[in-house]
Amino acid sequence: MVSLNGAANGVLHEPELIRPRSPNVGWQCSKMTRERRWASLNQIGATVWFTGLPGAGKSTIACAVEERLLATGQPAFMLDGDNLRHGLNGDLGFEERERSENVRRTAHVARLFAESGTIALVGLVSPYAADRKEAAELHAAAELAFIEIFVAAPLELCEERDPKGLYARARAGEIQGLTGVSAPYEAPARPDLVLGACTETVQGEADRVFEVLTARGLISGG
Amino acid sequence: MVSLNGAANGVLHEPELIRPRSPNVGWQCSKMTRERRWASLNQIGATVWFTGLPGAGKSTIACAVEERLLATGQPAFMLDGDNLRHGLNGDLGFEERERSENVRRTAHVARLFAESGTIALVGLVSPYAADRKEAAELHAAAELAFIEIFVAAPLELCEERDPKGLYARARAGEIQGLTGVSAPYEAPARPDLVLGACTETVQGEADRVFEVLTARGLISGG
Repeated sequence: MVSLNGAANGVLHEPELIRPRSPNVGWQCSKMTRERRWASLNQIGATVWFTGLPGAGKSTIACAVEERLLATGQPAFMLDGDNLRHGLNGDLGFEERERSENVRRTAHVARLFAESGTIALVGLVSPYAADRKEAAELHAAAELAFIEIFVAAPLELCEERDPKGLYARARAGEIQGLTGVSAPYEAPARPDLVLGACTETVQGEADRVFEVLTARGLISGG
Repeated sequence: MVSLNGAANGVLHEPELIRPRSPNVGWQCSKMTRERRWASLNQIGATVWFTGLPGAGKSTIACAVEERLLATGQPAFMLDGDNLRHGLNGDLGFEERERSENVRRTAHVARLFAESGTIALVGLVSPYAADRKEAAELHAAAELAFIEIFVAAPLELCEERDPKGLYARARAGEIQGLTGVSAPYEAPARPDLVLGACTETVQGEADRVFEVLTARGLISGG
């Protein structure tokens, strides 16, 4: 079972990780602790982070997991990288620095959702190991579960699927810096789960995510 | 009753407001519509935005509202300006441009929470009318309720309270650009509710927020 006792009464607080630009920003403490929040809603928050090449199937699997979590009454919410780039991260491009900022903001939003008692399902290429490590540490500092899932479909398969036509355009020279073609992807060294071997159905892959969530005490078994 | 039929099947979609930096970013459509999500969780999402001077009581009132919403089983989550500056917005300072970006990001996060079926309670000075208008429009484009509450405690009262000692330091010249002292605050022209007159208790003010939420069909009466 994940600890319900968050750091500092469940308030998001990680002074060692965050340095607000102004020393005059105080910390507004809500009387509502994480423990009380989760108990009153009878739900638990966590972040499940799907990383992998474009076209690997991150969003497809996350969608299936979301659907099944909601069917059990457990709030879950997809934070899809492409969708976020239409909103919160709409000001960011694809330079390495911007990709890192994209991951940083998404990690913070996921953490807020987890804190609120929702299972945040992040589907984001997130190609750099250091950025994903920072996302994981952000959650660890807040004593929130962070589950890294590597959707490891091989490049050839992703390129064959090419659901958004990105690979074709990258090969034609129309897109620069596509992960897997002309920008690096650093595979996770110790993910909590590896999917995408294309020997399983999407529902089978969702089963395996559920097994991990159950083993970590985040949902009841079944 | 607020419409459960979001634009484009409840998917966040406002092409007129958002221009991602890359034309190659597609829109990942979740099969989970807002209608199905809210129905399966038996909850409704919305954003309640508290604006006002530092020390006006925004977070205090929002905390009381959050506590009461959670007690009824309706998920609610505080997005407090100060807290966000320790995380998502930790890279931003207090220049006008940075304050706008602070409001923009917070509005996007609030919208995501609203979409997820949570009542997002934003407590943010948000001094510029144009920024708040953009936040409201972002929600309108997604057919999500946005309730603007002006916590209108007069400057003299805020300065007397001075819970974080900011006014004292601004008067002593140690802080530049404090809203109300050396930076402007543009009061809302047509807020949904005005609070902070200091003739009411915090619980009385929370009552009035509940009246608005009830009138808008966001919670059942009581």
